[in-house]
Amino acid sequence: MGIVGGGLGSFIGRVHTVAAGLDNRSELVAGAFSSNPERSRQSAPGYGVDESRAYGSYEAMLDAESRLPEDQRIDFVSVTTPNHTHFEIAKAAVEAGFNVVCDKPMTFDLDQAEQLLKTVENSDVVFALTHNYTGYPLIRQAREMILGGELGEINAIRAQYIQGWLRDKLEDDDQKQAAWRTDPSKSGAAGAFGDIATHAYNLGRFMTGVLPETVSCSLKSFVEGRQLDDYGTAVIRYENGALGTVTASQISHGRENDVEIEIDGTKGSLKWRQENPNELHYRQNGKAHQIYTRDPNAPYMHETAAASCRLPSGHPEAFFEAFANVYAAAFDDMAKRAEGATIDRKKSLYPSVHDGVEGMYFIQQCVASHKDNAAWLPLKHPVARV
Amino acid sequence: MGIVGGGLGSFIGRVHTVAAGLDNRSELVAGAFSSNPERSRQSAPGYGVDESRAYGSYEAMLDAESRLPEDQRIDFVSVTTPNHTHFEIAKAAVEAGFNVVCDKPMTFDLDQAEQLLKTVENSDVVFALTHNYTGYPLIRQAREMILGGELGEINAIRAQYIQGWLRDKLEDDDQKQAAWRTDPSKSGAAGAFGDIATHAYNLGRFMTGVLPETVSCSLKSFVEGRQLDDYGTAVIRYENGALGTVTASQISHGRENDVEIEIDGTKGSLKWRQENPNELHYRQNGKAHQIYTRDPNAPYMHETAAASCRLPSGHPEAFFEAFANVYAAAFDDMAKRAEGATIDRKKSLYPSVHDGVEGMYFIQQCVASHKDNAAWLPLKHPVARV
Amino acid sequence: MGIVGGGLGSFIGRVHTVAAGLDNRSELVAGAFSSNPERSRQSAPGYGVDESRAYGSYEAMLDAESRLPEDQRIDFVSVTTPNHTHFEIAKAAVEAGFNVVCDKPMTFDLDQAEQLLKTVENSDVVFALTHNYTGYPLIRQAREMILGGELGEINAIRAQYIQGWLRDKLEDDDQKQAAWRTDPSKSGAAGAFGDIATHAYNLGRFMTGVLPETVSCSLKSFVEGRQLDDYGTAVIRYENGALGTVTASQISHGRENDVEIEIDGTKGSLKWRQENPNELHYRQNGKAHQIYTRDPNAPYMHETAAASCRLPSGHPEAFFEAFANVYAAAFDDMAKRAEGATIDRKKSLYPSVHDGVEGMYFIQQCVASHKDNAAWLPLKHPVARV
Amino acid sequence: MGIVGGGLGSFIGRVHTVAAGLDNRSELVAGAFSSNPERSRQSAPGYGVDESRAYGSYEAMLDAESRLPEDQRIDFVSVTTPNHTHFEIAKAAVEAGFNVVCDKPMTFDLDQAEQLLKTVENSDVVFALTHNYTGYPLIRQAREMILGGELGEINAIRAQYIQGWLRDKLEDDDQKQAAWRTDPSKSGAAGAFGDIATHAYNLGRFMTGVLPETVSCSLKSFVEGRQLDDYGTAVIRYENGALGTVTASQISHGRENDVEIEIDGTKGSLKWRQENPNELHYRQNGKAHQIYTRDPNAPYMHETAAASCRLPSGHPEAFFEAFANVYAAAFDDMAKRAEGATIDRKKSLYPSVHDGVEGMYFIQQCVASHKDNAAWLPLKHPVARV
Repeated sequence: MGIVGGGLGSFIGRVHTVAAGLDNRSELVAGAFSSNPERSRQSAPGYGVDESRAYGSYEAMLDAESRLPEDQRIDFVSVTTPNHTHFEIAKAAVEAGFNVVCDKPMTFDLDQAEQLLKTVENSDVVFALTHNYTGYPLIRQAREMILGGELGEINAIRAQYIQGWLRDKLEDDDQKQAAWRTDPSKSGAAGAFGDIATHAYNLGRFMTGVLPETVSCSLKSFVEGRQLDDYGTAVIRYENGALGTVTASQISHGRENDVEIEIDGTKGSLKWRQENPNELHYRQNGKAHQIYTRDPNAPYMHETAAASCRLPSGHPEAFFEAFANVYAAAFDDMAKRAEGATIDRKKSLYPSVHDGVEGMYFIQQCVASHKDNAAWLPLKHPVARV
Repeated sequence: MGIVGGGLGSFIGRVHTVAAGLDNRSELVAGAFSSNPERSRQSAPGYGVDESRAYGSYEAMLDAESRLPEDQRIDFVSVTTPNHTHFEIAKAAVEAGFNVVCDKPMTFDLDQAEQLLKTVENSDVVFALTHNYTGYPLIRQAREMILGGELGEINAIRAQYIQGWLRDKLEDDDQKQAAWRTDPSKSGAAGAFGDIATHAYNLGRFMTGVLPETVSCSLKSFVEGRQLDDYGTAVIRYENGALGTVTASQISHGRENDVEIEIDGTKGSLKWRQENPNELHYRQNGKAHQIYTRDPNAPYMHETAAASCRLPSGHPEAFFEAFANVYAAAFDDMAKRAEGATIDRKKSLYPSVHDGVEGMYFIQQCVASHKDNAAWLPLKHPVARV
Repeated sequence: MGIVGGGLGSFIGRVHTVAAGLDNRSELVAGAFSSNPERSRQSAPGYGVDESRAYGSYEAMLDAESRLPEDQRIDFVSVTTPNHTHFEIAKAAVEAGFNVVCDKPMTFDLDQAEQLLKTVENSDVVFALTHNYTGYPLIRQAREMILGGELGEINAIRAQYIQGWLRDKLEDDDQKQAAWRTDPSKSGAAGAFGDIATHAYNLGRFMTGVLPETVSCSLKSFVEGRQLDDYGTAVIRYENGALGTVTASQISHGRENDVEIEIDGTKGSLKWRQENPNELHYRQNGKAHQIYTRDPNAPYMHETAAASCRLPSGHPEAFFEAFANVYAAAFDDMAKRAEGATIDRKKSLYPSVHDGVEGMYFIQQCVASHKDNAAWLPLKHPVARV
Repeated sequence: MGIVGGGLGSFIGRVHTVAAGLDNRSELVAGAFSSNPERSRQSAPGYGVDESRAYGSYEAMLDAESRLPEDQRIDFVSVTTPNHTHFEIAKAAVEAGFNVVCDKPMTFDLDQAEQLLKTVENSDVVFALTHNYTGYPLIRQAREMILGGELGEINAIRAQYIQGWLRDKLEDDDQKQAAWRTDPSKSGAAGAFGDIATHAYNLGRFMTGVLPETVSCSLKSFVEGRQLDDYGTAVIRYENGALGTVTASQISHGRENDVEIEIDGTKGSLKWRQENPNELHYRQNGKAHQIYTRDPNAPYMHETAAASCRLPSGHPEAFFEAFANVYAAAFDDMAKRAEGATIDRKKSLYPSVHDGVEGMYFIQQCVASHKDNAAWLPLKHPVARV
């Protein structure tokens, strides 16, 4: 494993390395931790990386690692930098033949995303996007329940992602995480909608497979002087007639990382909250409310969900494990690729470059809709699939 | 107290009488329980009403009661019939000089509501609308907090009212409650939006006083053959720049009566759920999450909230008590009227005929917006007030 | 209905009258609100009682009411005074032929309780004890589940009743509620154990019917200078081999009225909390956790539980309604008595004079065990029954 | 890191290695995974351990590793085998100069524990016991709050550890985890009390530092034919006058791993549940209930608690991270030892060999008390410390 980003003070870089290493299936051995070579070197020891493999740029890393013997070089590149740099890094890595695990949103804009899609499709690399919430065992359980018909036809998808940390204008305090996320030149066309609404939207897509049709979106920048949205609501019409909402906030006092999704089907309904991820509420009229817990041995657990658990029920798992599950699914395909086996992307559980394109399209259309007085715009991208 | 409606099999009629009588401030002594005189008489004993005052029509009740000596006749009329009959009953009662407590939505359409408003304004009667959720002590607490500035400027109001009982087409099974609610000739232009979204909308208005500007609404009838909406989402832009959503469902499996509201202000956020009404979550960045419980003796409790409690904290209060609190506030004004004292409507805590007009305007504009592809339509009615 | 107690400033007197009147099956018409005749008269209007029937003593009330024609006199007497007066009042009322609804603990000591039992047994009156928590619909549901064998053999009963209001020495501030409860001459041999542990113990007995064998109890008075216990734990061995605990506290900061009970059977387990009384958690290994909500129409609801609901699910019911359910069950038997019909006490749902004796025995043995270094003492009183 | 135990099918071996490696501060390089050399070798690849360092016995591992150059040999030994083998393994490892991380309960009986204590005291190794629940950040927060006086004097400690997995007699089905835990020759004198009650007891000791005085314990084996307790309750009197309870169950249907602790102090109360470990409820009379979330940046967080977090608030952490925190604290001391620095055991956050002795004393006295009809026996061991 080689990482791009993750220099001193980084949050998400550390998450990637812990997640990737949780099951002992990969080891971080190289990194372009910073575009400042000195800083990159300084970051290496904290990751247990030999300084000789701490590079001053992603280009240097790709170049040097490519020259190493196959059994020594990195197998994949994790891209954990701010959004505006994802494209060139990921593209170069793919073109150099490395598998890629890329943070979301995938690129700066849709155009880049579509180019990257082509690059990936012209390669045989494994490309995974860390929509990490899809890695929670009970999200996979919900997905299997829905795709297997247990909920019947899906009528409604209500997703919220509520945070409060950008209530103050932290970007003025030189807070690194806040600074690039609120800077259109680094984050892209959207703020909260690019950073977190995409997660909520993707979660509904992942869980239900229902295809979107059109979207109407209203965005707000409640903090004075902020350049990008810090709040917004999108209403989504789905192809099958379902109605959805995605609401994202970064300005809700005291709210931490509250991803919540409710799904109504003709045969049952589900509710899940990320802050209490070991419970999935399943309801059917005329029956007791049921709480499915993350129990790998429970008869109700579907295969992919049970296989995503590391601990018995009651021993809570959380954020790192979910993140690790996305990596684990990608590792499965990387192993197949290494063996020359065929990869059936329909069975892959990790979000892919296609999801990345869909996500960028979602952001683009939401912003466009907002600018046009919340007009209804198309939302289904040609690459969308169940 | 005289009631119109509440005949055998009625749910809401019983709620009104229990709520009105809870504090021993009124007693049901007359009723037009049914338009079938025989059935009306049969309903009387169940309410402890003398059969001589069980009338076969509201006209008969108003007429007969008006002739009784002042100290024997009813003080007010509770209107608990299906929507399409509210107008004529309430209007007649007001014109006969009786105070009125009317169920919501106030009338069949906006035109009736505006007429009724004039009638009430031309009278000196007390007119209360049973948006009963406003009666919960912690809702009144939230209102006082917000109007007093504790939350700062309001940025966002997210309200949901989720039920599941109309998932099946009960109206075909001759289920009385379902039948009239899904019948446009009785319920009015909207189904779920008239029945429950109005509550959610009103709750946000009551709690924040923030005035609406425009609305965009999408409605669905998910149950095949149903004539009115059983699901929908409205996005609301408020005058002060706040953004709101109101989502209502009657088709969410296993969901009971889940009214939930979240409010974000620049200084704090609130969250409340009707199914666990004795808790109000109050959050501020950098502080522990706070749970305000319904504690009449707590230092944090504002006056109207504390006065709305009947029991010490930990002894839960619920639906009936909230409903009773709306009645109690109306009784206070009725008592003033009886004494010839001036009523300051700004201090009245019960929803009024003005709220009824606003509610009917909300329903009308939501349905109109929906029919025009969720177009943005005005939402602020001239009578709206903080 | 005639009440003894409930004078100005009383909490429980008001609860009794609201509960008794909730279903319009009784009306308060007389009261010995205070032993001070003047104060008694002053209390009458607040209850809507005619001053002519506001008596200065219970003796006066019993005497005067007995002389009234049968259709005018009170049907039953509610005893809501401090513990040390229950016996003489209840005994006199029974001997005068009135039905009695008595607050708990039933008497000052066991000897009085046994005498009262005999008095009641020698009469044909209905005698109900307001262990009000037994009136919650889901408690009755649990009872029917257990008695019907759904939980299998009962192995464990864990009950807690945790409050915090006596953390400070309120009795020194002349707080009326605190003063008599901490005064051995008024409250009896126990403080928290008499006031609240009895409720928790009774709840387990009511729900399971399992008979106790022995008890070991440790009591504490954590507030300096307090004469009675404000904390304690009893370990109970049941006849069938089950093990139980009852813990009561009045000194736990911020805890309100937290009655919680967990029951383990060989086939399933239950958990219920009074502060969220509309949910009953039912668990079985290998199945999803089930939440039974207070839903009168749910297929899982047993008959007595469904009949104890006044509102549809999701419209929360709470403390008053549970209290009213105890009254309602007593009213059923009072009606039978009035009609001369036979009363089958095994089918009566209200706690009886036998439960009162058991409760006093529980208090006596807990205090005795505590004084003897938590020795194991017998707990099964001869009158105990399933 | 070298491990003893953790062979194929092991649960806790995997937990140890994930926890130890989570922060990249150690790497598993050797293991005596099984006493069957062939099986040990087969287990090695799953851990990424070279087969040459997969030993057939702990003796072989200690011997071989001792001969390796210092910079290649293992730094510490993790003992993850059934209880009856802990002593000889840990003792040998200590005597060979290796640091030890040992699973709980520390030994088979108290005598072994006291011997091991001496061995450790005569060495300079770091010895940590994985009472893993002490590693949760909010448990450390509670400890700092209490030791710092925020709760005042401690009055009551109520701890429960409720499971349901041994409701059936799994030991008859050759279920490995169940088999040794219910076998007195492997587990020791106690079943549930040795396996889980010790955790609950230790948690209270860790959080409060309050010293125990005496204990009275009642144990049960509810599953027919089971040789050890699967349920029990201990009542504990503390030196400072506090009263405590520890209840453990392995037979409660559907209950997973429900460790719950409530602590009452004269200035405040705390409540924490392991299944929702990112919340700590802190209550004080007259104030809103406060929920402290696991927020490393919150002003209320004490130093050791904040330092125990890896992720920002709202990004849940769970079982692995808590376990890793115990390892991390031990690593800190191991590093000091390696540098020749002084270790101040009072500042060490990991449970130590002293806690192990206390735990074995707790088990011994509980079993002895139970056998003597729940007699009160001493509980304070001479090594106990705040």
